[in-house]
Amino acid sequence: MGEKKKIILTGDRPTGPLHLGHYIGSLKNRVALQETAIQYVMIADVQALTDHAEHPETVRANILEVALDYLAVGIDPAKSTLFIQSLVKPLFELTLYYLNLVTWNRLKHNPTVKQEILAKNFGESVPAGFMVYPISQAADITAFKANLVPVGADQQPMIEQTNEIVQRFNTLYKTDVLVPCEALIPKHARLPGIDGKAKMSKSLGNCIYLSDPPEAISKKIKGMYTDPGHLRVEDPGKVEGNPVFTYLDAFDPNTHEVDALKEHYQRGGLGDSVVKKRLESVLQDLLEPIRKRRATYAQDKGAVMHLLLQGTKRANGAAQQTLEEVRKAMHLDY
Amino acid sequence: MGEKKKIILTGDRPTGPLHLGHYIGSLKNRVALQETAIQYVMIADVQALTDHAEHPETVRANILEVALDYLAVGIDPAKSTLFIQSLVKPLFELTLYYLNLVTWNRLKHNPTVKQEILAKNFGESVPAGFMVYPISQAADITAFKANLVPVGADQQPMIEQTNEIVQRFNTLYKTDVLVPCEALIPKHARLPGIDGKAKMSKSLGNCIYLSDPPEAISKKIKGMYTDPGHLRVEDPGKVEGNPVFTYLDAFDPNTHEVDALKEHYQRGGLGDSVVKKRLESVLQDLLEPIRKRRATYAQDKGAVMHLLLQGTKRANGAAQQTLEEVRKAMHLDY
Repeated sequence: MGEKKKIILTGDRPTGPLHLGHYIGSLKNRVALQETAIQYVMIADVQALTDHAEHPETVRANILEVALDYLAVGIDPAKSTLFIQSLVKPLFELTLYYLNLVTWNRLKHNPTVKQEILAKNFGESVPAGFMVYPISQAADITAFKANLVPVGADQQPMIEQTNEIVQRFNTLYKTDVLVPCEALIPKHARLPGIDGKAKMSKSLGNCIYLSDPPEAISKKIKGMYTDPGHLRVEDPGKVEGNPVFTYLDAFDPNTHEVDALKEHYQRGGLGDSVVKKRLESVLQDLLEPIRKRRATYAQDKGAVMHLLLQGTKRANGAAQQTLEEVRKAMHLDY
Repeated sequence: MGEKKKIILTGDRPTGPLHLGHYIGSLKNRVALQETAIQYVMIADVQALTDHAEHPETVRANILEVALDYLAVGIDPAKSTLFIQSLVKPLFELTLYYLNLVTWNRLKHNPTVKQEILAKNFGESVPAGFMVYPISQAADITAFKANLVPVGADQQPMIEQTNEIVQRFNTLYKTDVLVPCEALIPKHARLPGIDGKAKMSKSLGNCIYLSDPPEAISKKIKGMYTDPGHLRVEDPGKVEGNPVFTYLDAFDPNTHEVDALKEHYQRGGLGDSVVKKRLESVLQDLLEPIRKRRATYAQDKGAVMHLLLQGTKRANGAAQQTLEEVRKAMHLDY
């Protein structure tokens, strides 16, 4: 009957609504992957708290928003297991056991965490919980025996940390309970912001959200950064580093026409407004059905929460099973 | 009806059988305190794992041994709530929330942990779980709203760390859910070893265990360190730093006779063997009924485990209640 189904763990921190960067970097893939893999999609409230302890109300408010974004793009709760991290209690316990298998020094030297500490300006006051979150991720991944984890290229060290724990655990306790995992690095890993900055990010204020109304989309695209050297229509323009073309590459299904536009733009004689108009049409077409589905689900938030709690129940079953195997391997099955 | 009952959290790491140092430093007090306070007595397997991850079977094996020691000295499961830490799941979750309220730097500068790292020769490979255990202790203490925590003088920084978390949590989330605690520092905080070293400790091999048979007690006392300058019976001897006299002070109910013996020893003319004989008589009298009760309980280990699980159920109820209040204060009561 062919290969065994892959098990995927993926998810998002509920710190804000999801945007086009999420869509192209992960959500779109999830909609495809749920057809062929066993997919767990986690709303990572516990992880969000590691740098939002002062604003848990933000985390709370965004759980439902993220869930609506998921449903709107077509993640199907009958095919994917959608769940809320903090309600899957075995994850806490696994995290604390794994912390005993990792040295303090190892935590300090996680390249992703080091970069994030700089980016977040934590200085000397990094919360201990933030330093520990790669171990919490290892708990999430291993609890579901996920062997495929979609991550950005910069998150590769997280997968390495998880596999170190898997190997140490299995060797130390002479078991094969924990399953090693592989990173699945998406083609469009990172969408630039509308301001041309490398990353679309809520804190940079340069996002197009999946829930943006048509007028907001239109306004954002009109104001998009392009080639600053492309002053007059007849000037030759650059397409590299020009987010309008990056977005067309990502979202416009007609690659031949996009290639022709690029050539024209580089040659000169093609105005930004023409290209932006095309992009707007592409994005309005993409986002309209998403926004409509979102609005429909948003009419009954109780039902959405119910879907989340059902998925959470399934997730708990799987994680509890792993926890029991872990405790047995550690001789802690009292 | 007078003052509100104090709530006490206390316990031991199940890494070996309990000894006279535990008895005089804590067990004896617990037997008294259970009459007037609400007392939780925790078998701290999770904490033991922070430096026993390579030997969880040691932790497992000693859970029942420690429970037998408790019952043998008179800790009454009808009066004290005896429980196994790893089976009280809310403790894991509280630990992870509290980690977000403590900086990484603060963890590094815990004086007790720093000393223990030296003592345990961890060098560069301190497990992250070990660095984090003061936060796990804060979870244990606050989960039961304990306001009185019996600790050795060297453990005072643990109480300070807990109270910092309590204050930060209550201030940040505008609540009074968490309760500050006080250290209860026992009179006989630390019993020297039979070799005269400052501390009776399994790893130093200088203990008299509560479960030692009479011959072992006899042999250990005969071999006890005394005043090395007290060579002949007629020589004057020192009582300070002489563990035989420290033990008599701790265990001999007849303080007048002990005082007279001390005077005689210091004057000269009193042999070590006479003093040791008295100590042996005192300790055999103390330990015989303990050993007998222990043997009786040990005949039905299933029943002892059942007692532990009943206590664990009560402990879970209390901790779950606190966790719900904590999540509510953090707006995480989905």
